[in-house]
Amino acid sequence: MHTCIPSPIAWTPGHAVRILDQTLLPGEEAYRDLETVDAVAEAIRSLRVRGAPLIGIAAAMGVGMVAGRGAGGGGQLTQILQACDLLAGTRPTAVNLGWALDRMRQRAERAQERAENLGPALIDEADAIWEEDRAMCQRIGELGATLIPGGGTVCTVCNAGALATGGIGTALAPVYLLHQAGRTPHVLVPETRPLLQGSRLTAWELTHAGVPCTVIADGMIASRLRLGDVACVIVGADRIAANGDVANKIGTYGLALAARAHGIPFYVAAPSSTIDPKTPEGSLIPIEQRDEEEVAGWRGARTAPAGVGIWNPAFDVTPAELVTAIITESGIFPPAEVAGSPLTAHRSG
Amino acid sequence: MHTCIPSPIAWTPGHAVRILDQTLLPGEEAYRDLETVDAVAEAIRSLRVRGAPLIGIAAAMGVGMVAGRGAGGGGQLTQILQACDLLAGTRPTAVNLGWALDRMRQRAERAQERAENLGPALIDEADAIWEEDRAMCQRIGELGATLIPGGGTVCTVCNAGALATGGIGTALAPVYLLHQAGRTPHVLVPETRPLLQGSRLTAWELTHAGVPCTVIADGMIASRLRLGDVACVIVGADRIAANGDVANKIGTYGLALAARAHGIPFYVAAPSSTIDPKTPEGSLIPIEQRDEEEVAGWRGARTAPAGVGIWNPAFDVTPAELVTAIITESGIFPPAEVAGSPLTAHRSG
Repeated sequence: MHTCIPSPIAWTPGHAVRILDQTLLPGEEAYRDLETVDAVAEAIRSLRVRGAPLIGIAAAMGVGMVAGRGAGGGGQLTQILQACDLLAGTRPTAVNLGWALDRMRQRAERAQERAENLGPALIDEADAIWEEDRAMCQRIGELGATLIPGGGTVCTVCNAGALATGGIGTALAPVYLLHQAGRTPHVLVPETRPLLQGSRLTAWELTHAGVPCTVIADGMIASRLRLGDVACVIVGADRIAANGDVANKIGTYGLALAARAHGIPFYVAAPSSTIDPKTPEGSLIPIEQRDEEEVAGWRGARTAPAGVGIWNPAFDVTPAELVTAIITESGIFPPAEVAGSPLTAHRSG
Repeated sequence: MHTCIPSPIAWTPGHAVRILDQTLLPGEEAYRDLETVDAVAEAIRSLRVRGAPLIGIAAAMGVGMVAGRGAGGGGQLTQILQACDLLAGTRPTAVNLGWALDRMRQRAERAQERAENLGPALIDEADAIWEEDRAMCQRIGELGATLIPGGGTVCTVCNAGALATGGIGTALAPVYLLHQAGRTPHVLVPETRPLLQGSRLTAWELTHAGVPCTVIADGMIASRLRLGDVACVIVGADRIAANGDVANKIGTYGLALAARAHGIPFYVAAPSSTIDPKTPEGSLIPIEQRDEEEVAGWRGARTAPAGVGIWNPAFDVTPAELVTAIITESGIFPPAEVAGSPLTAHRSG
């Protein structure tokens, strides 16, 4: 079976960062070449490139681009570290961003010490981050597929698919592998207001790949789960605290409550870079507050009256007790054990 | 304190039905005069006039208009009964519609038997339904206000306010009375996709009345309730089954699950005409499925890709076990006792 899974990022021939502008989907499939670190930062802030793993990759590639274009000498390292600082401040919740930039910083300093050429070294490091993510997606898919009955219905939220990663996605990776194996699940896709990453992005990439899906408004989730035919929920994550609490797109917590009320397993699929051993519990994860206009309407068409208050957190925290298991590339863990998993032992080593 | 609460319905001087076109709010405050029963039916179907109590009133007024313009004779009763049949088929879930039309039918037949003039009799009956609704809203407000701490935060969903009734609303009635008493609560307003009756209508009428409110996306409800400062949830109802199960706007069930998870009381405010003793339990309430386009985008701007499946039920059913109490004009009842309340005894008598 042919599965056409879109790729949201690439190098241009001159090592600028080419992205699929996700703010324009599904109406327009437009690519942008980001030629400066400021352009990369703007693309991350404005969600042209989004998804916790992908913003780590995009930021690393942005730093690689800066290094590749540097003139050499002592100023080049400074320029690289400044790019890392700028990009680290673009979005606060996803831990993968800081993790990828830490790797780029360390590689830059090591290269400098060893008198390596910084450009190729940092482009290689960004490629390594990307390639590792691709492999992690594949492995998460293989492990996750063992939890999903072929041909069943799976519910996700937001977009934790190919558009959010450097590979076949996290939450959607098992879906794609089952589809390739001829046991295609049906995917239930909450639209995910305010920015509609569910209807705009997840439904788009699933449709491209030939996976059937049904879009619902977010308020329909509990009713839909009650029908009894949803085999499991599988979502991505932007940061997982040491105790297994999961920060993910706003709406995930309500979905987890509805899954629990109906006895439906609730899985979180994420690469190891999402686990943050330095954050003991979910309440300590910084939650990004975004512009009120996102909730006040849609693409500038105002729907809320002037003068009302608006609350617009981009993420929520699902307590570990509502999470059945966390699927990483190293294995499937109960949430309470995720901090002691081989992957975080490896990372802190 | 001056409270300016908008009124969504009126008679024109010639006894046509004047409505505030709620599909255009909050951007435009436009009134339409409905001069035929077909125009009334269209306005109900398309949600220009909506809210369970208000569609009962609007339908009754539509029948009154037909009667008022009839030429008398045997054909007039037929014309009235045909209008009742047409209007009864416009929307299936709210029981108030059928209840109001049954009253109009019975009044027409009684008037015919007594050789009364059908026009004035049926206009009077529509006025009585409207006036009773206005009084019920007031009484629901007085009773409900005893349950809400002054100055606290109250969460609702969709619109069960003045725009949904012939008076000061059902769920919002206690809010308005507390506001008039100088103990204004803050109202948390989920936007209520797909048609945004929360952000477009509830936020609009609260702002008009000077009540502060905060609009959130529906996926933010659980996170917001978790903050711990929401005193109670209070919602309207489109039909209440004999066992206390409550059909209301899609999203209500998820809100009830989130309220339960956080120990927040969940109240349903509705006039007696909402209780349907003939429907033993919620699973037997017919749920209106609406057009896919409502979920696929916003006012014609498509956000979901072509070819995806869409599910668009307009209502869901909250099981009685999640309902703390039902507030009617006759008293505050545990959901299991609502079918035996004085009001339904009165109605079946």
